[in-house]
Amino acid sequence: MTAQFPRHDTRLDRFVDRYAARTHGMKVSAVRALFAVANRPEIVSLAGGMPNIKDLPLGDIASNMASMIASNGMQVMQYGSGQGEPRIREQICDVMALEGISAHPDDVMISAGSQQGLDLVTRIFCDPGDVVLAESPSYVGAIGTFLSYQAEVVHVPSDESGIDPQALRETVGRLQAENKRIKFLYTIPNYSNPSGITQPWERRLEVLEACRELGILVVEDNPYGLLSLDAEPVPAMRSVDEDVIYLGSFSKTFAPGFRVGWVLAPHAVREKLVLAQESATLCPPVFSQFAISNYLENSDWEGQIALFRDMYRVRRDAMLKALADHMPSGTSWTHPIGGFFVWVTLPAGIDTQAMLPRGVDARVAFVPGAAFYADGQGARNARLSYCFPPADRIVTGVERFADVVRNELDMLNIFGVTAPAKHPQTSGPGADIY
Amino acid sequence: MTAQFPRHDTRLDRFVDRYAARTHGMKVSAVRALFAVANRPEIVSLAGGMPNIKDLPLGDIASNMASMIASNGMQVMQYGSGQGEPRIREQICDVMALEGISAHPDDVMISAGSQQGLDLVTRIFCDPGDVVLAESPSYVGAIGTFLSYQAEVVHVPSDESGIDPQALRETVGRLQAENKRIKFLYTIPNYSNPSGITQPWERRLEVLEACRELGILVVEDNPYGLLSLDAEPVPAMRSVDEDVIYLGSFSKTFAPGFRVGWVLAPHAVREKLVLAQESATLCPPVFSQFAISNYLENSDWEGQIALFRDMYRVRRDAMLKALADHMPSGTSWTHPIGGFFVWVTLPAGIDTQAMLPRGVDARVAFVPGAAFYADGQGARNARLSYCFPPADRIVTGVERFADVVRNELDMLNIFGVTAPAKHPQTSGPGADIY
Repeated sequence: MTAQFPRHDTRLDRFVDRYAARTHGMKVSAVRALFAVANRPEIVSLAGGMPNIKDLPLGDIASNMASMIASNGMQVMQYGSGQGEPRIREQICDVMALEGISAHPDDVMISAGSQQGLDLVTRIFCDPGDVVLAESPSYVGAIGTFLSYQAEVVHVPSDESGIDPQALRETVGRLQAENKRIKFLYTIPNYSNPSGITQPWERRLEVLEACRELGILVVEDNPYGLLSLDAEPVPAMRSVDEDVIYLGSFSKTFAPGFRVGWVLAPHAVREKLVLAQESATLCPPVFSQFAISNYLENSDWEGQIALFRDMYRVRRDAMLKALADHMPSGTSWTHPIGGFFVWVTLPAGIDTQAMLPRGVDARVAFVPGAAFYADGQGARNARLSYCFPPADRIVTGVERFADVVRNELDMLNIFGVTAPAKHPQTSGPGADIY
Repeated sequence: MTAQFPRHDTRLDRFVDRYAARTHGMKVSAVRALFAVANRPEIVSLAGGMPNIKDLPLGDIASNMASMIASNGMQVMQYGSGQGEPRIREQICDVMALEGISAHPDDVMISAGSQQGLDLVTRIFCDPGDVVLAESPSYVGAIGTFLSYQAEVVHVPSDESGIDPQALRETVGRLQAENKRIKFLYTIPNYSNPSGITQPWERRLEVLEACRELGILVVEDNPYGLLSLDAEPVPAMRSVDEDVIYLGSFSKTFAPGFRVGWVLAPHAVREKLVLAQESATLCPPVFSQFAISNYLENSDWEGQIALFRDMYRVRRDAMLKALADHMPSGTSWTHPIGGFFVWVTLPAGIDTQAMLPRGVDARVAFVPGAAFYADGQGARNARLSYCFPPADRIVTGVERFADVVRNELDMLNIFGVTAPAKHPQTSGPGADIY
């Protein structure tokens, strides 16, 4: 048959008048095109947050999964529970016990990656205009999700121990005086993305105490928790407060391609989350859940995490040494004890978003700090990740980065400013910056 | 360490004052507890919409997937594209060509099941109070999603050929006179869930023509399209109108446990959908996409669909014959030429939701018709599915169902009414009624 309705020119958005209000905030990130370029092999990408999974025992995983399909294919390929499969929820309770959490499998809901857990938590709590509190800086993907629900993201001043409880009290007081509705505090206490900062135990208790007094829910996001590089992990906030909504993930401790994360929440909240999950996907990926269950059952997953730690430790050390060796004076950076990221602070006047094209030209990619703020801060910051490239490439990348910064400082000395220092926040983490 | 914060009684919802407005509409379906009971082996469930995947070649799938992991594990277990993997988007274009659709892979976005496609389409288009038009009756999971975005669902009167174009014009005229914003028409033209009705080609063109004149977007949901039982499928609406937003799925033609569906949309809309997807999950399930790609590449998937058709045809025939043999006079039902469902209409005065406990007591489960309306209609209807139980169980189930209906009619004759005839719509498809 022939087309009875005309083909339109689809380059312009003819649908622009039809979208929901929330959609007008969804824009392609300005740095996205650059990251596409950054995937070229000659460029060292210190931008990506992809875990390095090359040491996984692929042969064992392949044969275990084949057995699972042959023996239980009818179940693992069928629809499943909206809450997630019972067995993996039990196993997740064992995983969380490693960080001091005592939980019941019925309080766990599986999500399509912890990103979806965050999406559904935001969905059930946030009306347009509600406030979400976050560290300063905070995870770009979380900020994008909060904004997609038309929430307002307010950064709480944070220091080298994470959120400052006194600043938290002041921020909440100010917002309440403005009659803002604060829905929750979103925090990544372990090896935060992007700052690499770990919140000490005493500070966690102070933040929890402040939130309890102020009536603020805490959402604790802990994708990197088991990837401690120097010492045993600090226990999770959830380990002492059962009202904390806790987000976990297998993306960094096993593999992200299965898209399996979880939310541990008080019973009533978990019930709402499951209703939201059914409306969003009917059920989270069933095959993926069984695949991970199978891996946890049949492989030495704790031994594998120890291997991952050893590998990331070498890379972290390479990055910190290269920064110390090459960065010009007036710059500083964090010293992560786990996770994937180092947060660099450059002299005032530098704009890392304007600097990025010059970085890519010099064959090094990083994420400009502005991506990790909803309010235009971060112009003088950059996130460098040491998770994906091998150590020698990391050293090369940091050398290039330091050269670019040095050139930028020269320009700053000559012209007084390198570029406009505020950029609008765009939605979504985009590309592979996670 | 000891718990420093007290354990609360979690049976009451202490969080009720904190939820978003949309969350207050999320309630557990009244029939849910009954469906849990309906999974007991002595009960014939004609309620579930689960495909019967027992004829899949599990051995082949297992060995192909093992090879895939061993040879390409680093890619299939890593993060992927927010839009979905390029290869499967090409293969999906080949699948859609079977229903007359010519599409470019760049206009396809992968979703975590077509339910998530629907969720994201609703997300980008619907503000609270916006209207979504739907068939009468329409898919319970879609209604739940629309309501979760606080959209108003308005059913367009439909007949044995699906949506009535004249009634569509009248409905739109009335809504526009009320200054309602209509966002799209949601329609399942093939073997509709729950009605089993197939819209003839000429009627599809009339509906498209009306929508074009009225300026209404069309969202065509086609999970069952290739499961025609008597003749070749009618071409999709999208085959003649590139503005149609089309939802597809592998859940019924392969297996639902991978949670892979897709949306084909005009370029600008597809861009917004990908931004929404990244905010919702970062990327749809990567491993699942490669698994299905692998299946399409290495297995006789068209031959498998032919096998599925043969199996469902036997079951459909068994159900229709049993209904003809056993149902009392004054009842009627649809005669599907594909898909999974028969829609039964009982005499006025019957309330199938009130009848359900008596059905379960008589060891047969069905879905009360009210689930498929947002406005309280459907009290005299029931959805019977023939997809999952074997033919002899279907016959037993229909015999039991007919007995329950007969008893109900006796009660109606004695008391004049069996129960209140309107029930509030609750959110989410719940359990396994899909």
